[in-house]
Amino acid sequence: MSAKDVYHDKVKIALQKEDWLVTHDPLLIELSSGRLEIDLGAEKLIAAQKNGLKIAVEVKSFLAPSTTSEFHTALGQFLNYRVALKVKEPSRVIFLAVPVKVYRNFFLGELAQLSIAEYNVKLLIFDPEQEVIVEWKN
Amino acid sequence: MSAKDVYHDKVKIALQKEDWLVTHDPLLIELSSGRLEIDLGAEKLIAAQKNGLKIAVEVKSFLAPSTTSEFHTALGQFLNYRVALKVKEPSRVIFLAVPVKVYRNFFLGELAQLSIAEYNVKLLIFDPEQEVIVEWKN
Repeated sequence: MSAKDVYHDKVKIALQKEDWLVTHDPLLIELSSGRLEIDLGAEKLIAAQKNGLKIAVEVKSFLAPSTTSEFHTALGQFLNYRVALKVKEPSRVIFLAVPVKVYRNFFLGELAQLSIAEYNVKLLIFDPEQEVIVEWKN
Repeated sequence: MSAKDVYHDKVKIALQKEDWLVTHDPLLIELSSGRLEIDLGAEKLIAAQKNGLKIAVEVKSFLAPSTTSEFHTALGQFLNYRVALKVKEPSRVIFLAVPVKVYRNFFLGELAQLSIAEYNVKLLIFDPEQEVIVEWKN
């Protein structure tokens, strides 16, 4: 079991405020090589769709001294989880949840912008103080 | 400066044994968002080619308690470095160097195999005791 990210519950509340039903906390993916734990699984009913929209959310605080190092780990986790979901639950879309200040100070920089574009990283930008979602970046 | 991986010098020696000229230790990539440091840069003259073959090598020991966590970080580093090289030095090919025991015990498992295939991760498998390269996986 990995330690819960400090912003885990804040993102959970932010999702619930936007009518997401948090169905998994954490969301487990069983592979023959071991179990993966994604922070949250959530679902939303959309009027026009027969089946609800399903997401997985990995929450990163970016409170470590090196934001670049934490970004390496976050990118690797996100992409490993995405490939595991592709096999086990292909309809679920995964997002990386990042605090809005970190988004503005780091994710708009060259490295993060290059990687996000190259690897199609979907972001959920949240405000940890207000406990709200600021923006979805698909 | 990040701490040198414990196997850094062993991979350097292994490359030199195969006639690679280690040209950078470390290899620096300057982006507007900051500097990235890849463990090694090396070059080899190939008879049939006008220009030498250039590689970058990121060395991972996988000595941490959780191999999966270290794999998240290694994958993220490898892919961030690759996208930075694509912009700054597109002819240089990057490899992730992993010890042969870790390759057999972890990299043949489901998660690593899925990710390596999905994200086209090139591996340099080395034996840290013999200080030799066991296999290149392109």
